Order: sequence, then C-alpha cells, then structure tokens
Amino acid sequence: MLGRVNHVAIAVPDLEAAVASYRATLGASVSQRQALPEHGVTVVFVTLANTKVELLEPLGDASPIAAFLEKNPSGGMHHICYEVEDIIAARDRLQRAGARVLGDGNPKIGAHGKPVLFLHPKDFQGTLIELEEV
Amino acid sequence: MLGRVNHVAIAVPDLEAAVASYRATLGASVSQRQALPEHGVTVVFVTLANTKVELLEPLGDASPIAAFLEKNPSGGMHHICYEVEDIIAARDRLQRAGARVLGDGNPKIGAHGKPVLFLHPKDFQGTLIELEEV
Repeated sequence: MLGRVNHVAIAVPDLEAAVASYRATLGASVSQRQALPEHGVTVVFVTLANTKVELLEPLGDASPIAAFLEKNPSGGMHHICYEVEDIIAARDRLQRAGARVLGDGNPKIGAHGKPVLFLHPKDFQGTLIELEEV
Repeated sequence: MLGRVNHVAIAVPDLEAAVASYRATLGASVSQRQALPEHGVTVVFVTLANTKVELLEPLGDASPIAAFLEKNPSGGMHHICYEVEDIIAARDRLQRAGARVLGDGNPKIGAHGKPVLFLHPKDFQGTLIELEEV
C-alpha cells in the first residue's frame, strides 16, 4: 500500500537558523521559504537525491506544530509522509485494521495541493504518519 | 554534500508489534529481523520505493536507543541517515563550520558495514543525523 517516502518533516523553532544549517553547514539545496497560512506553517524544502525534507516553522496562533515545539523546544522530526495511490482505499483498509485516522476521517488538501490524511501516532509506535495521494 | 536519504530510523519498544503494524496494517514490505549485538539493536527494514525505514528495538544492556525509549516509551523517529561520498571530507567540513560530531570524531562501521558518523542533535534543530559513506 505504501509507495515512496514523499518527505520527512522536521519542526524547527527558527527557520532562518535551520536554513543556514542545511544550506551552509550540510551543503544541501534548500528552497525559498513559503508561508502557508491555511496550514499554520512556513516551510522550506531540502531537496535530496531521492526524497525531500521539509523544515516547518509555526505560523499564526493555531499552528499544528506549536504543541510539538512546546514539548521539543529545539525542534525535531515531526512526521513522515508516504505516498499512496488511492487515499480512500488506504483509509478504509486502515480503519478496518483498527488504525485511527486523525480529524473527521476525510482527506484534506495538504501543503502540496494533494489529498492527505494523518494517522494516530499511538497506533504506529509514536510516529505521526501522513499519507498523500499522488 | 548530502546525497540520498539512506534511511529513517524509528525506535520501537516491541519489534514484533511494529512489524505487524507495518506489514499487516500499512501493507509494507518488511524484512526478517536481524540481531546486531555489536550495535545494541535488533532491526528490520521496511522497503519503500525510494528509501527505507528501519525499525530498531533495543538489544542488550547498553543499547544506544535505550535512553530515547525511556523518554519516548511508545517509540518515535530516532534519526535520519544521509549518504555522503567521502565521510572524512564531510566530517572536516562540518567541524570547520562548528558542528559537533559524536564520539571521538572518527567514523565507525555502521549497521550496513559502511563508515558512519553521527552529528549532535543540538546543532541540527533537535534532529540526530547519521552520515554514511556509500
């Protein structure tokens, strides 16, 4: 069911400092910053040869990564996103297996303009998993 | 400097349960378990189309993931491993930029039989980064 790893998301308290780490210190290719107010984050993409890392900084008062950064003030790996071909079929299979889908169970349009779902970390060894239909 | 994402490592308290989650619930291809006593972990590989996820369970009394699981009893994303062409050149560049390499600064032979180094999470937004020479 799982396809490619679309991205690994890292929540950071200071996006400028994070961009400097990845661009100057690690020598990676880092995109311009994009504010995504409807998702409550500002994001940059670190392009690797086979996938990407997304660095996320909170944006606005109700950012979905605010609680994570309260618990992990330095930042940390926040979620991993896997591609699926059919997100409704994936959701139905997961729910039949007893896994919990966050929110109302219906896909939302994610930061890349594609339908996404998040799975409850308690059902997957403490890892927040995003599924994205591609 | 950074090449492919070689793997994302997830520390888990119960490898059998984790294998069941990834194989049966998520429908992923999961390897047989491999005990790596010299690395203090038992590991399985989840094969994705473009990279892999490694599920790590502590093995023995001095497992390098024991402290992480004490802080995160359900498990969680533990580190991300990037490939580099020349690990000594990578280390020297990182140290010149002020980043801290864990241990004595010399590469060790990692779980895949290749030279590896770990970078201090405090220098990279709370993310433990492994570099592997390929």
